[in-house]
Amino acid sequence: MSEHPFLRACRRQPVPHTPVWLMRQAGRYMAEYRAVREKLGFLELCHHPAAAAEVTVTAARRLGVDAAIIFADILLILEPLGVGLEFASGDGPVLHRPVRSPEDVRRLAPYDPADALAYVYEAVRITRRELDGKIPLIGFSGAPFTLGSYLIEGGGSRNYLLTKSLMYEHPQAWHELMSLLAGLVNGYLRGQVAAGAEAVQLFDSWVGCLAPEDYRRFVLPYTRAAMAGLSPETPVIHFATGTSGLLEAMREAGGDVIGIDWRIDLDRAWQRIGLDVGIQGNLDPATLLAPVAEIRRQAADILARAAGRPGHVFNLGHGIFPSTPVDHVIALVDAVHELSVR
Amino acid sequence: MSEHPFLRACRRQPVPHTPVWLMRQAGRYMAEYRAVREKLGFLELCHHPAAAAEVTVTAARRLGVDAAIIFADILLILEPLGVGLEFASGDGPVLHRPVRSPEDVRRLAPYDPADALAYVYEAVRITRRELDGKIPLIGFSGAPFTLGSYLIEGGGSRNYLLTKSLMYEHPQAWHELMSLLAGLVNGYLRGQVAAGAEAVQLFDSWVGCLAPEDYRRFVLPYTRAAMAGLSPETPVIHFATGTSGLLEAMREAGGDVIGIDWRIDLDRAWQRIGLDVGIQGNLDPATLLAPVAEIRRQAADILARAAGRPGHVFNLGHGIFPSTPVDHVIALVDAVHELSVR
Repeated sequence: MSEHPFLRACRRQPVPHTPVWLMRQAGRYMAEYRAVREKLGFLELCHHPAAAAEVTVTAARRLGVDAAIIFADILLILEPLGVGLEFASGDGPVLHRPVRSPEDVRRLAPYDPADALAYVYEAVRITRRELDGKIPLIGFSGAPFTLGSYLIEGGGSRNYLLTKSLMYEHPQAWHELMSLLAGLVNGYLRGQVAAGAEAVQLFDSWVGCLAPEDYRRFVLPYTRAAMAGLSPETPVIHFATGTSGLLEAMREAGGDVIGIDWRIDLDRAWQRIGLDVGIQGNLDPATLLAPVAEIRRQAADILARAAGRPGHVFNLGHGIFPSTPVDHVIALVDAVHELSVR
Repeated sequence: MSEHPFLRACRRQPVPHTPVWLMRQAGRYMAEYRAVREKLGFLELCHHPAAAAEVTVTAARRLGVDAAIIFADILLILEPLGVGLEFASGDGPVLHRPVRSPEDVRRLAPYDPADALAYVYEAVRITRRELDGKIPLIGFSGAPFTLGSYLIEGGGSRNYLLTKSLMYEHPQAWHELMSLLAGLVNGYLRGQVAAGAEAVQLFDSWVGCLAPEDYRRFVLPYTRAAMAGLSPETPVIHFATGTSGLLEAMREAGGDVIGIDWRIDLDRAWQRIGLDVGIQGNLDPATLLAPVAEIRRQAADILARAAGRPGHVFNLGHGIFPSTPVDHVIALVDAVHELSVR
């Protein structure tokens, strides 16, 4: 398994073709997934190890990708904090008891992921068994900043004003919160690895809302702590969006592979993070709504920018949109394999 | 007037202090503005030259900034296209008849801004007179991409899927739409200059959603056409957000000053666009919710990155949030003046 292209690429070893997997590859755009969701709510599905394993494996097989990622949500780690997590249909996540003051932060009690998130580890074990060594399994977690932003905003946000206000007005409470989250994330990732995850991805999806200096002061140490002690046995992918101005600082925080979005040319991004680290990306997921000829054109452009250099994992710059045609996704996977044969 | 610090900075001439103005400096965070809005709806205010001039001048005086910007909205230019523009309170703009197909694009009829937007030119004339030479007046327009995205989405958007779909699936209709908008924007900016605007800003607020290659193929030529023939008599500020990966291409499109957001360090951005062009920015508007000491700290950091080099116009990276305390805004303006004295 250590010879699989995905793991080899994460370690910047030569590969027979560029490995590809896609964020949210098990999701609403796929009929098989929608069929499962007719029986189970989103959180129910996350909580049900066998069903989570099923949607993970089904999607990976259907697409022919080079890695599977465990079916879960970045917010599961917040649920045991008692914040009232709910996924209302169509509206995205809501946290009914957000954390907005130093008092709120101090009320949060750390817990042991091995107890409260044991169902995720079980899903990892079942999925790993069902994949049967054919492709590697990726575990994942949200990163402290992105998790903190959901805790504070009580859901998604456009401008992160509550998050930034807590950061600026109550820096000590901010640092306590980040520290607590970094510890939980680190334990959770280690637990997934112990259960069988062969690589992990840290999603700091919304950290691109910060100025570079604020990232360094308020986030970087905790992102680093969240990844501590994982690499090099297990490759760590450090992913975020909107980070064209933060790449050097993200690299400094850590990760064997830096995941970028589409808002920067891949060759330019790789030069900036350094060629001694891997890179993951970077097709705009909106491109999957375009005609297949355009999808192939853009995939070829990205592969050309990677220049066959060891260390490129092909992916989108963010998750697949629900309105994406499945055959376009398959066409992308095929195109990456076909166009990257060494 | 050509000796005013703001205009001198736009031309990269030495200044006694770094000039500062703030996007949305006349807006809901200010009691004087809210008082006017109790009598007039948002579009009514835009359509009323004397009232628009009043809010412009009042805000500039209250803050002590180095430039005023005409009170208007980037979407006014779309109104004469018959798309049913409405500003529902609290919800942002809605266009009731969006443009989503090649047929929709072909139905759009170009018009003469000198007729349909004469009220903006009148507001420019009145404001210029009332400013009485104390500070320069900036005119502005939305840029073709950002205007196109509103036309197609029918309002704001998170992922711009309809916009990108039209671009990819009907490239000819896309190019026709951009061409029509570029012509309108160019005429509108020229009209504002003829009426007395001493500089203009082109807002391509949402273009940061694009991959650099798509920007070059689908947007750059039209942005350039929108600015054609204005500079060097009238400085042109070319502003957008989320463009840390697009800066070189934006520079190539044109502008005497490139406006950036806070997601990149100002010194790094200036190196990338080239030191032979001015730069505007780049405080995170969320910082204005922080304690004044933090605001001053961040203003000092930005000024230090500009290193006293001629060509820096201090601004936020985007508009002032409605929840911003007015005294924080005044504290920022004072800090920039005080900390940048040569």
